[in-house]
Amino acid sequence: MRVDLVTLFPELFETFLRTSFVGRAMTGGQLEVRLRSPREFGLGRHKSVDDTPYGGGSGMVMRVDVLVACMEALDAEAAAEGKPRARRILLTPQGKPFAQPIASTLSTEPAIMLICGRYEGFDERVRSFVDEELSLGDFVMTGGEVAAMAVIEATVRLIPGVLGNLESTHEESHGEEGLLEYPQYTRPAEFRGVTVPEVLSSGNHAHVAAWRKQLSLERTQARRPDLLDRRETSPKSKP
Amino acid sequence: MRVDLVTLFPELFETFLRTSFVGRAMTGGQLEVRLRSPREFGLGRHKSVDDTPYGGGSGMVMRVDVLVACMEALDAEAAAEGKPRARRILLTPQGKPFAQPIASTLSTEPAIMLICGRYEGFDERVRSFVDEELSLGDFVMTGGEVAAMAVIEATVRLIPGVLGNLESTHEESHGEEGLLEYPQYTRPAEFRGVTVPEVLSSGNHAHVAAWRKQLSLERTQARRPDLLDRRETSPKSKP
Repeated sequence: MRVDLVTLFPELFETFLRTSFVGRAMTGGQLEVRLRSPREFGLGRHKSVDDTPYGGGSGMVMRVDVLVACMEALDAEAAAEGKPRARRILLTPQGKPFAQPIASTLSTEPAIMLICGRYEGFDERVRSFVDEELSLGDFVMTGGEVAAMAVIEATVRLIPGVLGNLESTHEESHGEEGLLEYPQYTRPAEFRGVTVPEVLSSGNHAHVAAWRKQLSLERTQARRPDLLDRRETSPKSKP
Repeated sequence: MRVDLVTLFPELFETFLRTSFVGRAMTGGQLEVRLRSPREFGLGRHKSVDDTPYGGGSGMVMRVDVLVACMEALDAEAAAEGKPRARRILLTPQGKPFAQPIASTLSTEPAIMLICGRYEGFDERVRSFVDEELSLGDFVMTGGEVAAMAVIEATVRLIPGVLGNLESTHEESHGEEGLLEYPQYTRPAEFRGVTVPEVLSSGNHAHVAAWRKQLSLERTQARRPDLLDRRETSPKSKP
């Protein structure tokens, strides 16, 4: 999979792309990342990428011509190598909230382009040059870079061969079943007076499985009842 | 504000803490960050921080004793300097979804500790040593590091004096009014045949304000009707 990144801060991704399983996917060839800064396409002596908003207001707005020039340069680079055009994804608080099913879909794409905004926002006309808009959540960020890292991390780990046994993709939080994970325990058996639940040392696999399923349901009910609602209305859970 | 970070990958934060307004907050003294890795408190020759789960299953589970030792070392460091103990926040998919009101609350804390999990998960007993659990969203990450960056970015920008005029905190997406932002435009006036809406060049401030309010509402209705529902049921919007 190729990830084209449009960002004013390419250096933010350097360590991220070298660390943990993302770094291994880069080394192993399952992940290829190209970084381009809109600054390269900035205007005038100061290589300006933004300007004041029409109609007034505080803050600066990223220019559509500069952003589109950057996206098209990445496309041209790919085309020159006979590689597919990337699916363009704009990271914006106004996009669709990013969630696991989106990560699954993206992980099957040959190439995605993540476009990180900065400053007050970007010119509205940018939207007509992208295929999709994603939001990391209902909180205000100053740029799309951290959102891009979240999309990369959640997506790349789903590419077959990227994760080893150490970090399995099964039995996880927000996994296939849409429930929160059951409580996990490891050594020591006792820590400051609190011990591991007996059933987990019983050796009875059926009891362990039933206990985990029960705790998983109870925890989801207590903490995120909205996940249970979604599950009930999802076609997957119908008989 | 002080941020204590418990992470197996301190290097992931290096560039992040030097870049953009987070970097300026560090230089300006509004933000102080301490990084400690649980690895320092790992066991045996390999400095192990995790072990296999009781009851079986794939993946590794982070040990409670190692994580708590790391948290307490950070507390001891603060105490030795007469500084306040940090509010402990565990980053986990099972936590409360992170959102703007939480960022606002956190920005008033003198110190927070962000605890990043890794691997399959962490020993359940860790939960009783933290004050709060936060989730970045309903997607699976392999570690809490990117979530910690999101919490830092969203929180630090709310500390008075951190943002200049360039990146104002007013009139923003998911701001006070709980609506998505209105469309923004900047130069050029025409790009590939698409022009800026006339009202924005009219010079009539009342018309501009009315147009923006209207578009903001329409966009929220079209893209995130759930935000309007929340707004209607929130005490703030009552007359």
